[in-house]
Amino acid sequence: MAKAGIYFDNAASTRVDPRVVAAMLPYFEEFYGNASSLHIFGEQAREALENSRQKLAALLGAKAEELVFTSGGTESNNFALKGIAYANRGQGRHLIVSQIEHDCILESCRWLAKEGFEITYLPVDGEGLIDLQSLANSIRKDTILVSIMHANNEIGTIEPIEEIGKICRDHQVYFHTDACQSFGKIPIDLKDIDLMTINSHKIYGPKGVGALFIREGVKIAPWQHGGGHEGGRRSSTENLPGIVGFVKAAELCLEEIEKERKRLAALRDRVIAQALANMETAYLNGPREKRLPNNVNLGFHGREADAVGLLLKLNDFGIAVSTGSACSSNRKSSHVLKAIGLNPIESLGALRITLGRFNTEEEVDYFLEVLPQALGSTRSVWSRGEKNG
Amino acid sequence: MAKAGIYFDNAASTRVDPRVVAAMLPYFEEFYGNASSLHIFGEQAREALENSRQKLAALLGAKAEELVFTSGGTESNNFALKGIAYANRGQGRHLIVSQIEHDCILESCRWLAKEGFEITYLPVDGEGLIDLQSLANSIRKDTILVSIMHANNEIGTIEPIEEIGKICRDHQVYFHTDACQSFGKIPIDLKDIDLMTINSHKIYGPKGVGALFIREGVKIAPWQHGGGHEGGRRSSTENLPGIVGFVKAAELCLEEIEKERKRLAALRDRVIAQALANMETAYLNGPREKRLPNNVNLGFHGREADAVGLLLKLNDFGIAVSTGSACSSNRKSSHVLKAIGLNPIESLGALRITLGRFNTEEEVDYFLEVLPQALGSTRSVWSRGEKNG
Repeated sequence: MAKAGIYFDNAASTRVDPRVVAAMLPYFEEFYGNASSLHIFGEQAREALENSRQKLAALLGAKAEELVFTSGGTESNNFALKGIAYANRGQGRHLIVSQIEHDCILESCRWLAKEGFEITYLPVDGEGLIDLQSLANSIRKDTILVSIMHANNEIGTIEPIEEIGKICRDHQVYFHTDACQSFGKIPIDLKDIDLMTINSHKIYGPKGVGALFIREGVKIAPWQHGGGHEGGRRSSTENLPGIVGFVKAAELCLEEIEKERKRLAALRDRVIAQALANMETAYLNGPREKRLPNNVNLGFHGREADAVGLLLKLNDFGIAVSTGSACSSNRKSSHVLKAIGLNPIESLGALRITLGRFNTEEEVDYFLEVLPQALGSTRSVWSRGEKNG
Repeated sequence: MAKAGIYFDNAASTRVDPRVVAAMLPYFEEFYGNASSLHIFGEQAREALENSRQKLAALLGAKAEELVFTSGGTESNNFALKGIAYANRGQGRHLIVSQIEHDCILESCRWLAKEGFEITYLPVDGEGLIDLQSLANSIRKDTILVSIMHANNEIGTIEPIEEIGKICRDHQVYFHTDACQSFGKIPIDLKDIDLMTINSHKIYGPKGVGALFIREGVKIAPWQHGGGHEGGRRSSTENLPGIVGFVKAAELCLEEIEKERKRLAALRDRVIAQALANMETAYLNGPREKRLPNNVNLGFHGREADAVGLLLKLNDFGIAVSTGSACSSNRKSSHVLKAIGLNPIESLGALRITLGRFNTEEEVDYFLEVLPQALGSTRSVWSRGEKNG
């Protein structure tokens, strides 16, 4: 196994910040009680749990009791969609999502569709943005939820969630946003958001923990049943070390959010500008402006079918990138690239570079230096039938 | 906050073994890739994940692909019941569980009942054991699942899962067992088990991780939808540090299982014998023989209503015990104690002492020394109306 090198796949997962690990450690061997227990060990755990909840609430501008800790983004998104669907099916059975949502939203929708719900999949424009008028037109009397992601995990598009929230509010429909990719990177105003998914391992926190913000008064059914933890909304012994780490990670991100946003955006823009300037086949997927500060998504005309080859070549150079979302690495094509209008060949692959806290200018320079060479070693679309060397 | 002392609540949660913490640490800051990623970081994560799965499979006598990692016992139990129910509802809509299952089984059943399933809640005898003939009689043509816990979390009763499994096999009905309390403590033969829930934080591993064993060929619907992780059965980025820790914890338990079983059973028997000998109001809930090696559950005639008072007094002495399961600490009475035939007053509370790896003989002696005094300070049932001092 080769030595791991430059990590440009921060949208897939991130290195846990050492300060986060340090914050978690006491909760393994010292404060290991079950937060439901009545004795001192339980009391300590409960206190740490509720302190964490309050800290996170303060960071978000929410109330502590509006936060439910979960096992991560996928669970939060499943919970939001299915919990809202089941709690409100008396009012209606129609949900609206975008075509470029994460698989955990889309697959939850497919499941709900089998269970008697109806889903509208809103199209997006060439930059991945939904059309607000289409959204408003799609809302029906029986619509119970709109779920539009804050920022796309593949192409970095930032959706206009403030406006979306207002439209939903006007139509008295719940609005959920999946903020897994944006939380900690760009500011979020909860004002017109009813539910929001956030998670830990995209923000230098541990894997296996996340949260769902549920605005007070929102009618949601618990989806994981049991002892009645988290105010009866999500049963399971709370993962206290994970929660403490998650909240510490969130604090660190939000403390430095403006500075880090600028630093990453500068690196991002350098990658985009240089790549487009140096390689004539290169094109940018997703918007130039309304884009996550750490996301670059490049297509290369004629080479889309060998995106995995490019990934592996860069891997040989010690650089870790992605061809799309980590969760669909093995799939043939990207539903996001299709949705922004790329043709079937172009949708087969792209190069996603997602920068993070531990990346440096030197790493970016090295990447830009070797990229043309790596690209040169890939096969054009015409040679797809040949055996890869 | 008082200094934490003697921890006798190992059924609620356990201190993470230092060897487990050490095993987990590299996966936070060094091997932090997403196991779905194609680059070296992903490869390292995938390798660690699959090594962990193989190790756990070998410990259980299962195949690696029969194990699905989850966020813990509650999720595994929810997944088992709902996943089997939804995948097999074409065959039938009847499930059988015992009356003394954990809340996450019972609440999942209540939810399923609202969704059109029918549940039989099997009674138990005075020791908490189900009757095999009643079970056989309860199985109908439309029965799709029997779920009986391996060992009860409150009174430690070990159910005859081998015989239960054979009955289910004979009737061609799936058999699931919740082994959260028994796994790592007593041997488990998977032979006639189709699904089994295990978790980490009861065996000196981290919170927030568990697994569901699903025998090859068992028809189960995924319950958490998304990117198709865990062979399409449970989507979500795998919690690799947690999984590595869980499997290390399982290895440590199983390595020392016979030795530790004897050590704990001796401590348990000492507590039971001394408590019954020294306090005339004391009685044992649950069986003497078919009992978890680490579980003691004592009632005190006339004092059941003040079990919390007794817990708090022992807490003042630096001893952490429980009045029942951690997950239902705040409830008025125990569904388990009711099910074994205790009257409404007696079911209000008991003292659960659950021993563990880090407990010593000296701790047990100290507990036995202070217990009568602590009990003396509690109120009898007759003074329930008075204000607690």
